[in-house]
Amino acid sequence: MIRAAVLGAGAWGTAFAKVLAEAGAEVTILARRASVAEAIRTTRVNEVALPGVRLPERVTATDALDEAIDGAQLVAVAVPSQTLRGNLGDWAGSFAPDCTLVSLMKGIELGTTKRMSQVIVETAHIDPSRVVVVSGPNLAPEIAGEQPAATVVAGIDADRAQFVQRAIALPYLRPYTSEDVVGCEMGGAVKNVIALAYGMASAMGMGDNTKASLITRGLAETARLGAALGADPLTFAGLAGLGDLVATCSSPLSRNRTFGEHLGRGESLESAQASTRQTAEGVKSCLAIRDLARAHGVEMPITEQVERVCHEGIDPRVAVKLLMQREMKPE
Amino acid sequence: MIRAAVLGAGAWGTAFAKVLAEAGAEVTILARRASVAEAIRTTRVNEVALPGVRLPERVTATDALDEAIDGAQLVAVAVPSQTLRGNLGDWAGSFAPDCTLVSLMKGIELGTTKRMSQVIVETAHIDPSRVVVVSGPNLAPEIAGEQPAATVVAGIDADRAQFVQRAIALPYLRPYTSEDVVGCEMGGAVKNVIALAYGMASAMGMGDNTKASLITRGLAETARLGAALGADPLTFAGLAGLGDLVATCSSPLSRNRTFGEHLGRGESLESAQASTRQTAEGVKSCLAIRDLARAHGVEMPITEQVERVCHEGIDPRVAVKLLMQREMKPE
Repeated sequence: MIRAAVLGAGAWGTAFAKVLAEAGAEVTILARRASVAEAIRTTRVNEVALPGVRLPERVTATDALDEAIDGAQLVAVAVPSQTLRGNLGDWAGSFAPDCTLVSLMKGIELGTTKRMSQVIVETAHIDPSRVVVVSGPNLAPEIAGEQPAATVVAGIDADRAQFVQRAIALPYLRPYTSEDVVGCEMGGAVKNVIALAYGMASAMGMGDNTKASLITRGLAETARLGAALGADPLTFAGLAGLGDLVATCSSPLSRNRTFGEHLGRGESLESAQASTRQTAEGVKSCLAIRDLARAHGVEMPITEQVERVCHEGIDPRVAVKLLMQREMKPE
Repeated sequence: MIRAAVLGAGAWGTAFAKVLAEAGAEVTILARRASVAEAIRTTRVNEVALPGVRLPERVTATDALDEAIDGAQLVAVAVPSQTLRGNLGDWAGSFAPDCTLVSLMKGIELGTTKRMSQVIVETAHIDPSRVVVVSGPNLAPEIAGEQPAATVVAGIDADRAQFVQRAIALPYLRPYTSEDVVGCEMGGAVKNVIALAYGMASAMGMGDNTKASLITRGLAETARLGAALGADPLTFAGLAGLGDLVATCSSPLSRNRTFGEHLGRGESLESAQASTRQTAEGVKSCLAIRDLARAHGVEMPITEQVERVCHEGIDPRVAVKLLMQREMKPE
């Protein structure tokens, strides 16, 4: 039986722990707060992150790192993207020598413009072949509700990717393997930014033609950046690109889309943060993604406008109008 | 000033006439029924197809073909896909010698498995370079409502494509040119079939992860068939592929999605036809698309299942379950 740890007790970390356990692993969730760990142990529910979802008996929780990762062959990391470096710096020495690290995070680190798997490699001082990325149209509450879904398991080392694939395959979850780590991570990170734009357009009353064009052009700029970084352009037409983008834009459960809706209704960044009690990942990542795009000479008009709305205070109506007025040209 | 004709007074034909007129053309709509033509002339509204939308003064209507196409340099064809051959057979001799024919239709002809532009070329006895296809995320009521949208104008002859591009460019409509006629037509035709599946999944209560996977895998099978027929695979990542598919699946205005919802609620084909007072195009085209796929050895699992639900009476729940159970494999 696989011993697995999930570092982070948010919605996706908790749902992923449920998946691992149902597929046969013994799973320990590491929660930052002792009260959350205790609640999971005693009530089998993470009421804060995933209310109403009963976790299998094979899931336990702790707030002690050593206890969580002791003997774990599979360590899934699901902490907020911008805190990953700080967290892993504390944890790095404790991983088992040959464990596989699974990144569940979708973001780009501010300042360094690094992908999450790069931050893991650097901070945990491990070989890149030991990191596997799981990404796809995987809204946590729906996975927890056992709605049929598919996902992509990407790793440089095909054996480790297949190990993770087997560890999460369930009748309601179909994992596909891929070698394109860069493409999967860029798809996951940029979709948060496009979902912010989608939320803005949606709150401004734009129709389905407009919103579908936004998804299409958003995926195109994601693929352009991805290709410049060495990703396979076809990855963006798959579950970790198009699939994740469409799920995030379609779902009222998406934090980034919801945050964009607040902005689209004319709220300031501070007011949107207050309303949603958090800052959506895309608000942070858009700065790093814009920096990456500029460094590689890639045009990303939607990302540029989202960054200007979030961080330069321009009116979303002006931003959307600018996007629509770009000149006619062959596609 | 351009003289244009629109053959067919349905929602898209009527909205397209409005676009042409606002972009500067004199437009005559050919309506099958004299009463519809007269109502457009006298009230400026096509209450049957596009209720509440006032047409510009430069739009007129007639039920006499000669009157509609007399001197027209641009003839847009927007009749039901399966009636195109019969209609054009009657009209073919009347076109001006160098007019450009614009196909607004999204379907594949039953029996012959021909695309609409192929049927136009055969039936009107004209050179393929004279046909231009317009396709994209263009829900007619939204275009008529002047919601910002983009579309693709595809033609073998770049000059004619640019002629049509200029003839429909407006502040709310951005046309992009393309040379990929096959890709644009296949994207438009297959999306109706995928939208049927989406409607079924939606009515069965599937979540956004599932529906996003359906869109992703649906676009993948569209691109496989398109590539086998000589299309550029990248077309399917653009507005006439992904864009049109997402708009159609997202919108409650989509006939194919709505028809799929009826089937997904367990209604028979006959009952769904009675409820919606029509047969959605995808119900017909799915037979021709399945035949094309088989002839070219292309696997199209979603199209196969839609065909079985529509024409072999299998239960949509069984069909969706079969789709989800396909074996794990690299993407």
